[in-house]
Order: sequence, then structure tokens, then C-alpha cells
Amino acid sequence: MKSLSILGSTGSIGTQTLDIVKDNPDEFKIVGLTTNKNIELLKKQIDEFKVEAVGVMDNEKADELKKDVDINVYSGIDGIIKIATLNETDTVVNSLVGSVGVKPTIEAIKNKKNIALANKETLVTAGSVVIEEVKKNNVNLMPIDSEHSAIFQCLNGENINDVNKIIITCSGGAFKNLTKQQLEKATAEDALQHPTWNMGNKITIDSATLMNKGFEVIEAHWLYNLPYEKIDVVIHPKSIIHSLVEFKDNSVLAQLGNPDMKIPIQYALSYPKRFNSDSKKLNLTEIKNLSFSEPDFELFPCLKYAYDAGKTGGTLPAVLNAANEVLVHAFLENKIKFLDIPKLINKMMDSHNVIKNPDLNQILDVDKKVKEDTKKIIEK
Amino acid sequence: MKSLSILGSTGSIGTQTLDIVKDNPDEFKIVGLTTNKNIELLKKQIDEFKVEAVGVMDNEKADELKKDVDINVYSGIDGIIKIATLNETDTVVNSLVGSVGVKPTIEAIKNKKNIALANKETLVTAGSVVIEEVKKNNVNLMPIDSEHSAIFQCLNGENINDVNKIIITCSGGAFKNLTKQQLEKATAEDALQHPTWNMGNKITIDSATLMNKGFEVIEAHWLYNLPYEKIDVVIHPKSIIHSLVEFKDNSVLAQLGNPDMKIPIQYALSYPKRFNSDSKKLNLTEIKNLSFSEPDFELFPCLKYAYDAGKTGGTLPAVLNAANEVLVHAFLENKIKFLDIPKLINKMMDSHNVIKNPDLNQILDVDKKVKEDTKKIIEK
Repeated sequence: MKSLSILGSTGSIGTQTLDIVKDNPDEFKIVGLTTNKNIELLKKQIDEFKVEAVGVMDNEKADELKKDVDINVYSGIDGIIKIATLNETDTVVNSLVGSVGVKPTIEAIKNKKNIALANKETLVTAGSVVIEEVKKNNVNLMPIDSEHSAIFQCLNGENINDVNKIIITCSGGAFKNLTKQQLEKATAEDALQHPTWNMGNKITIDSATLMNKGFEVIEAHWLYNLPYEKIDVVIHPKSIIHSLVEFKDNSVLAQLGNPDMKIPIQYALSYPKRFNSDSKKLNLTEIKNLSFSEPDFELFPCLKYAYDAGKTGGTLPAVLNAANEVLVHAFLENKIKFLDIPKLINKMMDSHNVIKNPDLNQILDVDKKVKEDTKKIIEK
Repeated sequence: MKSLSILGSTGSIGTQTLDIVKDNPDEFKIVGLTTNKNIELLKKQIDEFKVEAVGVMDNEKADELKKDVDINVYSGIDGIIKIATLNETDTVVNSLVGSVGVKPTIEAIKNKKNIALANKETLVTAGSVVIEEVKKNNVNLMPIDSEHSAIFQCLNGENINDVNKIIITCSGGAFKNLTKQQLEKATAEDALQHPTWNMGNKITIDSATLMNKGFEVIEAHWLYNLPYEKIDVVIHPKSIIHSLVEFKDNSVLAQLGNPDMKIPIQYALSYPKRFNSDSKKLNLTEIKNLSFSEPDFELFPCLKYAYDAGKTGGTLPAVLNAANEVLVHAFLENKIKFLDIPKLINKMMDSHNVIKNPDLNQILDVDKKVKEDTKKIIEK
């Protein structure tokens, strides 16, 4: 039986992870949960899963919760880290959103916890440091993203040196059929209406800009130790093929399934085993056809910026992510336009002096500074 | 370095196997070759690959060849078996066509040779005996069929007990778009004009009737020890996805590639390694879309008969294959109509008294008797 701490248990990935735990009571036990500020849902989860320790990012909400429950309630980023490093935990599910996930991930790894990672901003911001700690502490880092789970499954039993390239599929996001003129007027509400995947708000916007795919390219670079030249992106609107791996004999393996995050979440937790799933089975004759096209780097430059940031390396991916985080939140609050997101990311990247081989503190300083600077630009 | 004997070296799979040997001179060495009667091509192969022993099925042609070459020339079925069991050989590539492949395969296995099997009639006719010998002699039986190679690759690193089902894809054959009326008039020439795969004549007709797919269902049953209820067939005209495996968590793995037999042939020989290939790389955005539909069991009943024969087991699959072999040759010679193939197979299966758990001699007797009886019916 695996003992889990879930960071971000009240979000989309967090609640779906708890559904899997519920379906597999002999396999998983919850020892810790965290939320940003949704203590109402957290209370229900505490009751249902008999959890003995929780973290609440928001200090006021933490104090509020303490009055209502008899268990340990930790607060702030230190509270999240506390839950990520509990003695009883052997696997930490990191489903936080944003670079706030970096420190808890690294502390968990240092405490020899295995990581099931949905928080892609962690690898984008601090991939080099995370991977170094993973190796040093000999823990497993399992991807929860459907794309990286697909690649992981395709690589099972294979030799990474035999890989020609990996091909990450991309639904194209909510705005895939829009023209430049239409994109100029696109709102957050428009994007949140039609996602192929059931996801949180931030990732839905990241999908609409293709930044989400750019993040996945950077994640794949770190997870599979592949140069960016060996990582391709293909638009595949139905999201049935979750990604592919081409080997040196030109044989290609792919992982497929209905777009349901429960499958990759469960795999990240069950690996190296597979457990039964009550998710909908794939029926290709019902789906009838699958289509593929090239991504449009001009219309969706965030994907290009991600490749650029990844190839340059150092602190530039942290800049990409920090600016994006602030800009996406501003877009969600209707403070900026859709096309301001790539425009201002480009600006922040251009004005940054890259630090090569940064340590964690340098990365986190850049993350903080760029967020502040981006906010200033928006407020102008 | 692997030492190979190729049974059927002058056919489609045989010549492609030799191309792979040529491309990988440090990996493979040819020690024996066989042909049915194409001694002109065989002579060239003997020279090019410095082969020291060959088998020729046709006795007259064997005598003819003996006058021209200085090496050992064996003849008849015993000559083929001799090449399949040469001391120097460690892997036998069986690319014979028809149940003539059964005995050489079994003798090779008994002599501890690994088998790379393209001769699907061997497993259809005598699957139980072949698999028993494989286990007893602890040799590898590698599939060369693109579909079974795909399944093998998807199962790499996985547990067969986690498999929900396998899905074998099917191009639909040369006559996939014809109506019943059109099928009545369809000729061998029509079928041989438009195959998706570059294949021999017999397999092209088997593809047009869907019997080829039926054989693959039976092969998969034996290769992966799966009940027929766990083996599905899906029509996929472009033959890009070569087959899929659904696991119990509803995750599906697939192997893809351009329709080029060189990829699965090479994999069967390179496994567990992969070698470079000069085959055309898969480009999904060039292919644009992939489609899927259910097979039509009424219009193409051979597929149904294969499932029936497989499920009943015993000597019935040998009847299916023997009748089919004779009927396909008669169709190739324009002696019967396309729809006579399923009609007469059905007749032969109906009139057969199934022997349960047959030994090899019983199977080969049935094979011989059904071939004779089918010929008589045609000649009436």
C-alpha cells in the first residue's frame, strides 16, 4: 500500500486523484492534503479519507480551518512543504499550479519521497535542479501529464538511446480554429467554454496559447534527457493519441485513450503495475478518424518561445514561466488581451540577462523578480 | 552476430530479409537459403552472400542447380528441413507460404533454433504443437507479420495478464470498397493490382478475402496465449497503425509506421535491440488522417470462419487453412470465382469431424486429405 500526500487536493487533478484512491482502497492511503484556500472542500476530504495532516496556503483560511478540525493544520508555503515531507508519506502527488510547486517538490525529493508530478511549472522553472536531486536521492519522478505518461509507457522496456524523437500531440486548444483577428478579441470566457480535457482554468488558457504544449516540451527534455531537436509537436484535435516515440528503426510507439486524466494519474500511482479502471474504453470505430497537422508557430508564438527558452536554458525558462503565470492570471481577470500574453512574454524574455547553470535560489529570485516586473508592466 | 537460415529466400519476405542482412553486415550472416523453384535468383543470392548450403523444393530444379554451383544443394521437403536445422544456424527465418512450413519449423525448434516466423499458415495449421515445442525447447518465436510485431512491441515491458484485448488492424484488402455484386466478378488480376503492402500473390488474395486477417487472429491466439474473445479486428485502410493493445487500466498502446515489411522483419532479427533503418520515416502531418471502421463479416465471411475455426480448435484450423490454400491457388489460376473461396471453405469445415488435441501427424494427415478433397471439388 502506498501512502500519499496530495499537494493541491481541491483542484482538478487533486480531486481526480482522490477518486482513484477511493476506487483502490487496498492500494492507496492518504496521509496529507493541501489546498490554496478551498477549505470547505478540504474539510470534506479530511472526513472522507481520515487524513491526519493538511496544509493551507492562505494563512487566514488556515486559521479558520483550525477552529473546525482536530487534526494538524499547517499554513503557508512551509505548511505545503511540511505535508510534502511527512514521515508517513512515500509518494507526493504534486498537482499545484505554478512555480509555487518548485520548493515542495525539491524538499520532498530530498526527503526521499517519490514524486507523481502534474505541476509542470516545477520542471519548466527548475528542471535542472529537480533532475539533479532526483538522481542524487534515487527517487522515482513519474509524470501525470497525459503526454508524458504516454511517452513513459512507450519507453517501457525500451532503450532511451534508441529514440530518434518523441512526438507530443496537442489538441490545439480552445482557439485552434481562430484567425489572428479573432484571437485579438478572444476572451478568457471563450477559452474556458470548450476544452477537450476537463482541466483547471490556468491550464486551459495555457492550452489556448499553446504555452501548455511548450511547457510539455521543456518537461519532456528534462524527464527523458532528450535535446529539443528530438522533441516534436503535432496538432491532433481529438486528443486520442496522447504522444508517440519514434525509434531508430523507424518503428513508432504510441499511447492512446479517451481524454480522461484518470488514466495517466492512476498509471503514475500504480506503476510498475496497472490497475483496473472504470474510465471509458477507447473505441476507434466509434471515433472513426484521427487527424494531424503542423502547429502554427506564428499564430501561437508561445510554443516557439518555449522552444527558445528551453534551448537557451539557464534562467530563461523560469522567465518564460513567471511572465506567463502573471499574464494568464491577468487575462483570466480580463486585464489584458489574449495576444498580450505572447507579446509581453517575449518582452520579458528579451530583457532578461540569462544566468547559466543557476542554483535554486537564483532561479527562485528570477521567478519572483520577473513576476513583479510583469505585474508592473500590466498595471502601467 | 546471428547466423541465419532463410526458408523461402526468393519470395517477398525472403528478399527483403536479405536486404536487411546486406544493410547490417556486422550483425547477420547467412548460412542457408531455400527456394521453391526460383534457382536463377537463388544462384545470385548464393554468390552475393557466400552461402554454403541451400535447399530447393523442386527436385528437377535442384538437380539443375547442382550442375551450376559448388556448394551443398539439398532437395524436397527434407532439403528444406536440412537447411532449417544446419548446425551453424541459430535463427531460422521461415518465409515459406502455406502449411509446407509446419515441418521445417518444428524440426528447427527441436534443434534449438530461434524462429522468425512470417509463415502464418504454420501457426494456423499446427499452433498447439508449435507452441508446445517452443516451450519445451526454450527458443524464441518472433513474429514477422507487421501486426504481431506491433503487438509484441506494445507488450514489451508489460504483463500479459494486464491485457484487456488486442486490436489487430486490417487494411481491408484490395476489394474493401466492392459490393457483393462486384465481388462476384472480381478477378485475381484485380486483387493483385492494388495492395497497400508489397506482398506475394497468395497473401494478397488472402488479404482480399480477409482470410489473412483471420489467420492473424489465430496466430495472435497462439503467440500471446489469448482467448479469441480478447482479439478484435478493426479496418484501418492506410495501415499506419499496425495493431494495438488495450490494458486493464484502459490505456492503449499502438505501434505505427509506414507500411514497409522491412521494419517488422528487422525487429524480429534485431530484438531485443533495435538497429537503424533506411526505411521511410512516418510523418503524421503528411498522412493527415487515419480512419477506422468495423469489418464486414457478411461480405467477407472468411474472417468469421477463422474465428469459428480458432474457437473450435483441434483440427478445424488446419481444415480452414488447407481448403483456403487450394482455393486461393485455383482462384489465382482463374479456375474458381472469388466468392467460391469462402463458400467452399465453409463446405469443407462443415463436413469435417474435428479431432480434439491432435498430434502433428493427425494435423498433417488432415491437411493433406482436405487439400485433396478440395481439389476434387474444384475439378468437378
